[in-house]
Amino acid sequence: MKKIALIIFLIILIPFANLFGLEHPGLFLSPKGVKEIRASLGKYPNFDKSVNELKAIADQALKEKIEVPVPKDGGGGYTHEKHKNNYYEMNAVGTLYQLTGNEKYAQFVRNMLMKYAALYPTLGLHPVIKSEARGKIFWQTLNDAVWLVHAANAYDCVYNFIAESDRTLIENNLFKPMAEFLSNGNESNYETFNKMHNHGTWSLAAVGMIGYVMNDKDLIDKALYGSKKDGNTGFIRQLNVLFSPDGYYTEGPYYQRYALWPFVTFAQAIQNHQPELKIFSYRDSILQKAVITSIQCAYNGKFFFLNDALPKTYKTQELVYAVDIAYKNNPNQKQLLDIAAQQGTFFVSDAGLITARALLQKQTKPFDFHSVLLRDGKNGDKGGLAILRDGRDDNQTCLTFKATSHGLSHGHYDKLSIVLYDNGNCILPDYGAVRFLNIEPKNGGGYTKENHSWAVQTIAHNTVTVDEKSDFNGDFKISSANHSDILYSDFSNPNAQVISGSENNAYNGVEMQRTSAMIRTKELEFPIILDIFRVKSTESHTLDFPFYYYGQEVMTDFNYSKNTTELKPLGTKNGYQHLWFEATGKTDKPTACFTFVNGTRFYSITTLTNPESELILTRIGANDPNFNLRNDPCFMVRQPNATKHTFVSVIEPHGLYDLSREVTSDFETNIKGLELLNDNEDFSAVKVLMKDGSSFLFITTNKEFGQNIKRTIELNGNTINFTGNYYFTKINNE
Amino acid sequence: MKKIALIIFLIILIPFANLFGLEHPGLFLSPKGVKEIRASLGKYPNFDKSVNELKAIADQALKEKIEVPVPKDGGGGYTHEKHKNNYYEMNAVGTLYQLTGNEKYAQFVRNMLMKYAALYPTLGLHPVIKSEARGKIFWQTLNDAVWLVHAANAYDCVYNFIAESDRTLIENNLFKPMAEFLSNGNESNYETFNKMHNHGTWSLAAVGMIGYVMNDKDLIDKALYGSKKDGNTGFIRQLNVLFSPDGYYTEGPYYQRYALWPFVTFAQAIQNHQPELKIFSYRDSILQKAVITSIQCAYNGKFFFLNDALPKTYKTQELVYAVDIAYKNNPNQKQLLDIAAQQGTFFVSDAGLITARALLQKQTKPFDFHSVLLRDGKNGDKGGLAILRDGRDDNQTCLTFKATSHGLSHGHYDKLSIVLYDNGNCILPDYGAVRFLNIEPKNGGGYTKENHSWAVQTIAHNTVTVDEKSDFNGDFKISSANHSDILYSDFSNPNAQVISGSENNAYNGVEMQRTSAMIRTKELEFPIILDIFRVKSTESHTLDFPFYYYGQEVMTDFNYSKNTTELKPLGTKNGYQHLWFEATGKTDKPTACFTFVNGTRFYSITTLTNPESELILTRIGANDPNFNLRNDPCFMVRQPNATKHTFVSVIEPHGLYDLSREVTSDFETNIKGLELLNDNEDFSAVKVLMKDGSSFLFITTNKEFGQNIKRTIELNGNTINFTGNYYFTKINNE
Repeated sequence: MKKIALIIFLIILIPFANLFGLEHPGLFLSPKGVKEIRASLGKYPNFDKSVNELKAIADQALKEKIEVPVPKDGGGGYTHEKHKNNYYEMNAVGTLYQLTGNEKYAQFVRNMLMKYAALYPTLGLHPVIKSEARGKIFWQTLNDAVWLVHAANAYDCVYNFIAESDRTLIENNLFKPMAEFLSNGNESNYETFNKMHNHGTWSLAAVGMIGYVMNDKDLIDKALYGSKKDGNTGFIRQLNVLFSPDGYYTEGPYYQRYALWPFVTFAQAIQNHQPELKIFSYRDSILQKAVITSIQCAYNGKFFFLNDALPKTYKTQELVYAVDIAYKNNPNQKQLLDIAAQQGTFFVSDAGLITARALLQKQTKPFDFHSVLLRDGKNGDKGGLAILRDGRDDNQTCLTFKATSHGLSHGHYDKLSIVLYDNGNCILPDYGAVRFLNIEPKNGGGYTKENHSWAVQTIAHNTVTVDEKSDFNGDFKISSANHSDILYSDFSNPNAQVISGSENNAYNGVEMQRTSAMIRTKELEFPIILDIFRVKSTESHTLDFPFYYYGQEVMTDFNYSKNTTELKPLGTKNGYQHLWFEATGKTDKPTACFTFVNGTRFYSITTLTNPESELILTRIGANDPNFNLRNDPCFMVRQPNATKHTFVSVIEPHGLYDLSREVTSDFETNIKGLELLNDNEDFSAVKVLMKDGSSFLFITTNKEFGQNIKRTIELNGNTINFTGNYYFTKINNE
Repeated sequence: MKKIALIIFLIILIPFANLFGLEHPGLFLSPKGVKEIRASLGKYPNFDKSVNELKAIADQALKEKIEVPVPKDGGGGYTHEKHKNNYYEMNAVGTLYQLTGNEKYAQFVRNMLMKYAALYPTLGLHPVIKSEARGKIFWQTLNDAVWLVHAANAYDCVYNFIAESDRTLIENNLFKPMAEFLSNGNESNYETFNKMHNHGTWSLAAVGMIGYVMNDKDLIDKALYGSKKDGNTGFIRQLNVLFSPDGYYTEGPYYQRYALWPFVTFAQAIQNHQPELKIFSYRDSILQKAVITSIQCAYNGKFFFLNDALPKTYKTQELVYAVDIAYKNNPNQKQLLDIAAQQGTFFVSDAGLITARALLQKQTKPFDFHSVLLRDGKNGDKGGLAILRDGRDDNQTCLTFKATSHGLSHGHYDKLSIVLYDNGNCILPDYGAVRFLNIEPKNGGGYTKENHSWAVQTIAHNTVTVDEKSDFNGDFKISSANHSDILYSDFSNPNAQVISGSENNAYNGVEMQRTSAMIRTKELEFPIILDIFRVKSTESHTLDFPFYYYGQEVMTDFNYSKNTTELKPLGTKNGYQHLWFEATGKTDKPTACFTFVNGTRFYSITTLTNPESELILTRIGANDPNFNLRNDPCFMVRQPNATKHTFVSVIEPHGLYDLSREVTSDFETNIKGLELLNDNEDFSAVKVLMKDGSSFLFITTNKEFGQNIKRTIELNGNTINFTGNYYFTKINNE
């Protein structure tokens, strides 16, 4: 009897269930989830909104003729955008079929897939030759993989609707060849599929997801464990190496955002089909960390502009997926609901419904943005990105300090560079990438040549450039083989949050150490940045120390002469050829101060100078034949003939500039002076004097770091004792 | 008995009532209004918010020591900001006294006024010499008048609280001398008080308002009818001449906003004290029109950037006053409630309460932004500012077309210039003013020298400059004696809204006529601007026709050579010295197309060219020794050796650039060609061809304008009949 029951059970089950006993849909929706979503419609206004948006796309798609053109154009071009639109539509329409049961939706997906199944076998490599990894539908394989991720979901949703003969045709002519192409189509694709790189993640996710839908164990195993199924490559291995133990992705926040998409979506598919892998708990919940860390890498919702970055917020679709899926798989993370609320839209899926419901039940906790050191490198030993924050609001002060490894192909030569945000605005920016994504006339939407000649170069960053050359002389291989080091970080005192890092390989024979402290005193309205940048070498060098700023110059306390009738570039190569040399000045004072206004606040950079210091003002835009660059201004300190030099600077937000109410206050810096009291191998001591007569002393240790080490320092005849890596104290009015 | 009753009545009344039988407060609050406001507290959340904001200012003021420093600093400096803050505080604290009855507030105002009464007699003219009209408390009389407007309200609120002896002291030592100073203190002040200019309005309002509070008929009459009380100057006369019959203020929207403040507040005081003057009905309700027109002069809440303008919205305090007072005095204007709702704040006064209540009662109608011609000149015969709009939303397309008189001291040499807004952004801007208001290091917060050398010059505007000289050779007197003309306007067809203007005096022997049409066709997603600019002279000239744009260049259909290693100014004077000459090109095609991206949309300027046309790309910033200028880019057509030349251009918004979703469409213009089919003294006919094969014909008449005139035109062998000033028709696909 049991046997017969089992056989009957199998006979019934086999047509519907797959390898893992799951019915369709199984990637992001489940039969149970679909029921719940259907029951929720009209009851959860926030989730309804996302359903309606998807429905609008789906219904619009149904109105138009299905078009599956022969691939021809690069990014932004007609066939490129059409195929992109097609996968968006399939994804929406397929989902709508599940939500409504209306067969017109399923029919659309089937028809489109059939057209692709007819086209695909006829395709060679894409005619646009601009990528080493040319796709078939798109100019690069990456986009083909993205296509498949969406199509897999659409197919999953309508799987049961499509006649078996059509499924056979679609799978044999489209999905299986595409999975083969992506994973093994040529040397380049095989490499990508097995590479520890986010392009690889897309290939793995695409192959793995269509594997689950088609119930193809071979594809699934390859996606999870690599082409050789030995675990040396594949998705699981990527989880081990592509994120640091803190969940930092080495290419930086812009690409972390993008990488999360295939990571979390494929992980959700794995969780549904192979829960025994406990994928979301894997490696101390690395995916959870990656999502949280990604959000930490944002100011006012905008991702930090580091490495090759374009403006993106955490409201983008990929972060909606990431947040909803992360929340579904760890509903204790109530802070994710804060982000979901800001996103205001949901992944129409089991995960989205759960997130929307929790939001409506007011389970939200504020996302915990805080100062943090994100270690880089799979073992966390390749430097790191520090984020210093003061305040919790949209107008908080936030400093990033980058002392990481190179960051793969999207990295910049930006060792020890900083970026400052304040009052809701970016104040001292990183240029980001030179790229006009999806604008075909701009180099096909790819990185323009100025990305290499300008954006990646050291001089494009708020750090020291030595002898007008970039870190590692711009050698990608050497840079990739090295990394900066974090010397110490200490965020325990809210009045003095400190980060210190070093870079001793970027320039032969030059050692650099930067210590940045975010300091709050009761005399000043806003936190200030005290920055100590030590450069040491046996030979003499020219050091350029730029502060790129957003805003309008207001005043300087030094005289400069401006090139008003002729502009020439500051240099000829390594990025210098892109800087118009606008003005230069000197000062006989011990400091130079540059003040500008941005938004409703003034900012002053006060920096230690000597008679040799040149104060240079530049603007980006030279040698830009195609109008690809922004024209950002910069205040730069040039120190010629330096063997040992320490830049000491304070960056101070101050005052109020309210043009609406016509109220202005405190347009002048409150910093009266800076004194480098001592600066040696053991420690550097800086005294900062304010105009109100108050002052403070900051000492950073320069070697033998340890939070519990007791120190005794002799400074100007006084003995100072402290424990840890730095010392900060208010000095009484004198 | 009757007599006795009257005497008793008078005895009771006299201490409280003034000349007009009004008790205090009487300017913006009334005893009845105060009662209603007190009763409303806690019931109208929107009004409560404004009360609480005022209370916060008042309570903060009470915490601090009253300081009335000897005047010393210019705009943005310490004493300047302190005295400004003082009048804000008095205004807030005085109002709070009325709202709460708490005498601590009244005591504060009294004490501060007593300090001013002690200081004022000791003051000579302000030590900062930068204005011809130096004040005593501030560097310019204007600010003294603003001070008095606020202090008058504060005094009105606490009048009954202050002991009579103190009142006598305050009036004799402060208010009366100040009123005398403002109206008659020296030649300059007398002139201002009797001038038809917004500075005069402030003086009149200040003197008139303190006159009402002190019950001083002499001051009131002078304010209303001028120093000689003959009505040839004064407030009533200003109402006759400072606004055009359409309520347009000749200095432009930025100053109209500012001028409205004393106009509406003083008018409210007049209405309360002398209702028989029917001030809000005066001259066909000119004040009402002025408020409405001011709001019409805005895009997305931001006032048009014309003449000397800085960024301002209609959410500023002065517009809150204007809207609330205008609504109180004409509650049929329900559209004003739409603006009040956007402002989200109210004038804490009788007017504000009425407005807030109406809002809560959901009486709001959408403000009727529409295409309109605002005539300039007191009789409406000095040209005008045309506003063309398509769409009602925040992302509407909006073109301004300026063919006005000079605009007094804040006018620019900008005859026939246009500005384009679209999709929520400014696309083709006007530079506005070069000024850093209230930033002392920037020329004391006043206009910098680049305002004259750059911003007012013709080349700084989107219109034709002849021979590198400005209109009227930059002669203010001659420019002020002339004005452009509106030839016709016709907004009756939503698919072709047309404005045409001429300027025949700006350049000797040169006649200019510009016709701009906002055209909608069903083939194009967004409206386009067809622009026909005719220039005619007997002698040969060089014509420069710039399009300043905000955004990033995307593509051109002509080759240009860019000055990548050296920049020089385009010229030496009349504004040209401020333009970096970035690139130049020519084309052998009949048109040139320049495409850029701004926000989520692309924009193409397609313009008719011939082999002589030079296509020049510039950027503002040369000869700017103090970093006062923005670095806006420009696409310019230069036509050398022109005796008769007609520029024909289409400005087309197109496509989508959504970086967040990574979707791009239609980055290329849809305009295939432009043909000037005929161009003579009678008419100009332009054919616009689209890439989809469709095309349209637009004909503007060039003389004898009239909406009802029947025309017959021979064009390429065809006879075209139409009535009115223009002809617009779709041409069938060929």
